[in-house]
Amino acid sequence: MVPPVKHGEVASRMLEDAVASIPALNLEWRERAMEHLNNLTKPPGSLGRLEEIAARLVAIQESERPECSNPAIFTLAADHGVTEEGVSAYPKAVTRQMVLNFLSGGAAINVLGRHCGVEVIVVDIGVDGEFGDVAGLVKMKVAPGTRNMARGPAMSEAELTAALNAGLELAARAHTQGRSLIGTGEMGIGNTTAASAITSVLTARPVAEVTGRGTGLDQAGIQRKIQVIERALAVNRPNSSDAMDVLRKVGGLEIAGLTGLILGAASRRIPVVFDGFISTSAAAVACAIQPRVSDFIFAAHLSSEPGHSALLEFIGQKPLMDLEMRLGEGTGSALAMSLIGAAAKVYNEMATFSSAGVSGALA
Amino acid sequence: MVPPVKHGEVASRMLEDAVASIPALNLEWRERAMEHLNNLTKPPGSLGRLEEIAARLVAIQESERPECSNPAIFTLAADHGVTEEGVSAYPKAVTRQMVLNFLSGGAAINVLGRHCGVEVIVVDIGVDGEFGDVAGLVKMKVAPGTRNMARGPAMSEAELTAALNAGLELAARAHTQGRSLIGTGEMGIGNTTAASAITSVLTARPVAEVTGRGTGLDQAGIQRKIQVIERALAVNRPNSSDAMDVLRKVGGLEIAGLTGLILGAASRRIPVVFDGFISTSAAAVACAIQPRVSDFIFAAHLSSEPGHSALLEFIGQKPLMDLEMRLGEGTGSALAMSLIGAAAKVYNEMATFSSAGVSGALA
Repeated sequence: MVPPVKHGEVASRMLEDAVASIPALNLEWRERAMEHLNNLTKPPGSLGRLEEIAARLVAIQESERPECSNPAIFTLAADHGVTEEGVSAYPKAVTRQMVLNFLSGGAAINVLGRHCGVEVIVVDIGVDGEFGDVAGLVKMKVAPGTRNMARGPAMSEAELTAALNAGLELAARAHTQGRSLIGTGEMGIGNTTAASAITSVLTARPVAEVTGRGTGLDQAGIQRKIQVIERALAVNRPNSSDAMDVLRKVGGLEIAGLTGLILGAASRRIPVVFDGFISTSAAAVACAIQPRVSDFIFAAHLSSEPGHSALLEFIGQKPLMDLEMRLGEGTGSALAMSLIGAAAKVYNEMATFSSAGVSGALA
Repeated sequence: MVPPVKHGEVASRMLEDAVASIPALNLEWRERAMEHLNNLTKPPGSLGRLEEIAARLVAIQESERPECSNPAIFTLAADHGVTEEGVSAYPKAVTRQMVLNFLSGGAAINVLGRHCGVEVIVVDIGVDGEFGDVAGLVKMKVAPGTRNMARGPAMSEAELTAALNAGLELAARAHTQGRSLIGTGEMGIGNTTAASAITSVLTARPVAEVTGRGTGLDQAGIQRKIQVIERALAVNRPNSSDAMDVLRKVGGLEIAGLTGLILGAASRRIPVVFDGFISTSAAAVACAIQPRVSDFIFAAHLSSEPGHSALLEFIGQKPLMDLEMRLGEGTGSALAMSLIGAAAKVYNEMATFSSAGVSGALA
């Protein structure tokens, strides 16, 4: 089991240590990888982004045999006080119900996790409601959801630290378990509201431009959601040059947890695939805290939420897929992790021109 | 083993029969599938193209339990007489060498096939050179390559029929073996020249607009390739409203084989994933012969060959991925077949709102 979340000074120090220990990517490894890729039996560069991925894996892991062993997706669940403003098409109770669905294997992330050979680890970091002794749930509840950000900060300082810390603990655990590739996922009714708020602040775009229908709002619902986010920004005045301030005031416990997870993974050279819009808001905060993070992360897919492309552009990440998905849970991560696994195998398993006796290009 | 390829009248009749027996898609099945998808524990439509794929599989297979069992990619290899004009960055001998590489498991398609759980079936439909008793090769050689299309038709009528027929035989075999999903792939030094010629004629675009570097030509090489294709079109004057005429005069044996495979698969309700530029030229000919084919095929990915998007647009197909790949062999098919398998599992394995006790959307 995960050790209990630490609080106070020890907790803040854990984050500082993680951030400080995120290494710069050694570009010599990347060069060496490109050379190997060019010797494989295919025209140079003809596997496109798979080659790009493989070269980055080599540089991240500093190994000429990139690995994606024991992969897992961490699906963090939390509730959002802002749901009392009517910003979601589904009732808040669905967060807890879906966690139970994850645990019994009937959700999309379970199906895609099984299909892609990726374990799904479900974490209660802030669900409103108890789970009792249900099997398979990682219990790291910081609070039973955030406060309503339309009326004040979503989290206290202590809650933010605890949530970030929970993510760091998950990264530490992934490292101990020998996971060489992880993915992010989330569940939280109301969390596109938080992600849109973060996106608007970090990218300096109008709320209306980065706010969408989430689980399925109609036009009137989207208008209400925009007004609620605008109110939350007016009430909280998050400091756009302080990502932690933004995260605390208009974020979510699962977003903070994922931010910690990404920072912790990067500090341990574990590549992270991040899922859709909500996961990207966590990745954006992580990159703002430590820009070197961007070398360790892979954007899974382009969500059909309108704020997603702006946020991806802001952090300079190009998604691997565009399947018009907008479910979250880690569903995009699962599919993208399979592509990343494919890239590693291409690197490790393909024959070279000389080993296969294939002629090279004409002079 | 595959029965020997038939010639003459019997062969032509096989094609006519296949084309005539391609069914129209029953849209009621599609509707029924959409209803089921909307009951699964996710907001309606939130799995985007995966839902679209699942609904189409249901309609193709006319089954409420879509299957992707026993999947295989057929990688057809053939040589091209036009290589004597210097249109490729690699020597012609590479076609045969790469077939041997496929058979020993060291090529990209082998790695990706293994990764995606897809069998790779390698077919010699027109390689210049003998293979002897090598294990695992499907021998359906029609001729040791096409003739040089810059000087006359690439194939005789008999060769075209035999190649189409070989593809029909492969589809029949896939059906017998209970394959419920197949993919296309190819190997043939010089075959982007043929695919660009077909694309130029079918889409009525200038050769220069749809011709690229293939395996890696430089600018001078691309210019030469464009001139060779222009000469081939001037010499052969293919009839743009007769796709078979185009295929015979400026196509390739592997392209004709894939055309037959696609037609045969559609006639047996087997969905086909088609790979990049060369495979798409076969799909385009198949769609021109029988437009109903388009309901049975899935575009794997967008190749970085410049003619590919024009050709996909021409046949009204939207690729599932864009990974900037341009290798062929079926590498894009393998990855896309995994996505299609994922879509089928989503349909078959996800819990419904009622079975999982999850609340539906608010009124």
